[in-house]
Parts: sequence; structure tokens; C-alpha cells
Amino acid sequence: MNRVKCIISYDGSDFVGYQVQPNGRTVQGEIEKVLSRMHKGEFVRIHGSGRTDRGVHAKGQVIHFDTYLDLKGEQWTRALNAQLPEDIVVLTTESVDCSFHARFSAKGKEYHYYLYRDTKRNPFLRNYAFHYPYPLEIDSMKKALEFFLGTHDFTSFSSAKSDIEDRVRTIDMFRLVEEEQKLIFKIKGNGFLYNMVRIIVGTVLEVGEGKRKPEDVLEILQAKNRGAAGKTVPGHGLYLYKVYY
Amino acid sequence: MNRVKCIISYDGSDFVGYQVQPNGRTVQGEIEKVLSRMHKGEFVRIHGSGRTDRGVHAKGQVIHFDTYLDLKGEQWTRALNAQLPEDIVVLTTESVDCSFHARFSAKGKEYHYYLYRDTKRNPFLRNYAFHYPYPLEIDSMKKALEFFLGTHDFTSFSSAKSDIEDRVRTIDMFRLVEEEQKLIFKIKGNGFLYNMVRIIVGTVLEVGEGKRKPEDVLEILQAKNRGAAGKTVPGHGLYLYKVYY
Repeated sequence: MNRVKCIISYDGSDFVGYQVQPNGRTVQGEIEKVLSRMHKGEFVRIHGSGRTDRGVHAKGQVIHFDTYLDLKGEQWTRALNAQLPEDIVVLTTESVDCSFHARFSAKGKEYHYYLYRDTKRNPFLRNYAFHYPYPLEIDSMKKALEFFLGTHDFTSFSSAKSDIEDRVRTIDMFRLVEEEQKLIFKIKGNGFLYNMVRIIVGTVLEVGEGKRKPEDVLEILQAKNRGAAGKTVPGHGLYLYKVYY
Repeated sequence: MNRVKCIISYDGSDFVGYQVQPNGRTVQGEIEKVLSRMHKGEFVRIHGSGRTDRGVHAKGQVIHFDTYLDLKGEQWTRALNAQLPEDIVVLTTESVDCSFHARFSAKGKEYHYYLYRDTKRNPFLRNYAFHYPYPLEIDSMKKALEFFLGTHDFTSFSSAKSDIEDRVRTIDMFRLVEEEQKLIFKIKGNGFLYNMVRIIVGTVLEVGEGKRKPEDVLEILQAKNRGAAGKTVPGHGLYLYKVYY
């Protein structure tokens, strides 16, 4: 068998999420359907670096699968893209050693979160950026970002529904970029808990609104309680940008 | 009665077109539904500068309607946007004289057509630009554009289905703009026949592919026959950019 790694991008708007579910269209389901067709009906399981939620996009999600087919990287890319729906694209494909695992070999991830700040809605961005027409103190937000850097217990910044025990994660990059009427949060770390990016962004927005101070982030981290942090921002502004190995 | 003019923008992806039809969601239908609600159930007809087809977008469509409500411009904008679906937005509203008519007062229109030229599909642009990964001779295309300028009978560049008799139109601006991996056609004229922009762009693409020479445009115009021109490019790359009064 050959193990194949693909970097893929998808528009999350019309998916109920990345992971196969009993009901609804999923990214995993669409790719497995195409692969199974290429393997004469034999089911092929794909493994992603992690799931993304309903409406969440990916510019650099990574998957792997095992196959007896003997295609070269670019042949895989072309064959998959010819059959995949228009909202999923394979960017690159390469052969990898069988010790590689899209999820367990991942060393880190980078997410981007897009805000659209114009006073009026933009119909073309309704699925691609969180419309946030309120004033924001950008300097306070930038100060708040620094408190997330380093290794912390992120219990306060993860969904209370999560039953993962080890909630210690390391954030090694967190930046705020202004591009015309967009404000982009760029965050990179060794791993992220369920809803972690969206709760972090929601909390930083409350700093930007003046409802919290930048240094409040320290207290929130120490509280280890989801109730201490801010709101969860919507999924449609979130992009899985890159997975690091 | 007061006559009100609105400049609106919409994402055409989820509409069967601008104009009300027996089946399917339309831009006109959605706006009339909101206005009728604001007028306590009394039906309010809106008039657009013209229709746009299925999948075609607008950044500056213009509509007008008559109302007994006494709201100021910005109040109309806010009230409509609060109730309109996310894929339609009112950009500005103003009171106009009752002699103004969105369609009959229009002096000209500007359309933009977007190509996306990367070799790979982009899932985020699937509804917003025509994916065209083939080589193009840009200089030949720019030469072809010049032959469209001025006043011509555009029968060859209009849908054979159209039963309009006067097919003479004047084009006063036609430019090609390269922006990263996008190629944008910008065309302005005193009026456009059914499918005219899409057939013109399709024909210029055939010049870019080397299948036709720039000066062939003259012959095509003289033929006054739809069969002489190139293919109609898809609607999802087209934007009604501005209506001139």
C-alpha cells in the first residue's frame, strides 16, 4: 500500500462540517466518495489533521489515505480535482512514509479569523467574514494578544462540551493584521481545543470594545472556567490556514 | 407619494435572477416582500435599471419605488437592510423627483467581468469569477477591445432569442485590468443587449487564445449574426457595477 498526503482547501459554506455525520454534506464524505469511485467501489477512509465545524473554511487542511493505486503526486491532484465538487480543491499531493499521520504527526496549526468592519453588510462576504461594524480599540487588542503567547491551560477558552483532559497548549504566534476594511487575526500554536480560536477572538473583541482590559486575559486563563471568557464568534469567519509537520 | 431611489448590491449566486418569475427566489421578489411588509401588506412594485440573469451579481444596481411613507434616505437604508436577506444590501437611498425612472432615465451602464486564471480552481471564487486556466495573449485582447468602442449594431453580440429591433449601442469604455491572478474586463456603454457583455467577453477570449485576430471583431459586427461571434461566458463572473443617470 502507498500512503498519500494531500493539502486541500474548501469553502465551508455548504458543509455541515469536515467530519462525516449521519446527516448532511461533509468534506470528508465528498472526498471519500470520489476515492471509493477511483478504487472501483472499495471504501477508502481518509484521515484529516482535525475536524472543522459547520461553515468553517480551510486554505490548507491536510489529509492522508492509503491506496494500492500507483499514481504520482500531480496525477492524484488532477484526478481528484476532476471529480471533486467545486467547493473542495486539492492543492498538492505527495507520497509519504507509512509513519506519517495527518492528525498524529501534526506539530502545529495556524488559523486565520476574518472580520469585516464596514458599517454596511457586504453580500459577497456574508459567508467569508464576520461582519463587525462597531468601533474597536486596536491597540488594546494588540496588547491583549500578547497574554495568549506561551504555554497555558486553555480550559477557559474551550467549549464546556469538550471532554479532553489535557488542556495545556502553546501559542507561538498571534497577530492582528488590518487590510482595508478587514481585520484578520492570525494565530499559530501546537494545537487548539474545541472552539478555542473562536472563543479567543470573541474575548479579544470584548477588549477592543473596552468591556475588558488586555491584562484581564491572565485572570481568565487562571480561572480555568469557560464562563470567564468572552463569546464564541461565528464559524464563517474562521479559516484553517496551515498545518505544520 | 414620494419616489425613492436606492443603489443596491447583491450576490447573485442564490437567485434565479433579478426579475420576479413564477418559480424561484429573485432579487426583486425579496425586496418587494420587505417593502410590502413595511407598507402593512400593501403591495409595492419596484423598478430596476434592468434585469440581471441567474448567477449575475450587482455592486451598483439601481431601483426606484413610490411610497406614502415619510422616511429620510438613511432611515430607508437602515430599515430595508434590517429586513433584507444577507445576500442583498442597500448601499444608499435618496428621494428623487417623480420624473426619475430607474430604467428609462438610465444614460449608461458599466459592467465588470472577472476571470480567475490560476491553474487550480479556487473554491472561494467558484461563484464569483469564471475559472479560465488557459494561456491568453493579453496584448491581442487589448487590441480587440478597441474595435468595440464607438457606435455599432451589436446584433452579432446579442442572444438570438432577443426580439428587440434597435440593436445599435455605443461603447465608450472597454478596459482589461490584471489584478494578481484575476483578469477583469471593464465595459461601459449607453445600453447593453441581452447577453451582450457575456458574448463580447467570450469573443475576446477567443482572440486571446489565438483562434481569432483582433481585427476580426469588425467582420463579426458587420455580419449582424449571432453565429459569427464567440461563446457566451458564464453568468457568475459578471457584475453590474454602476448605472449612470
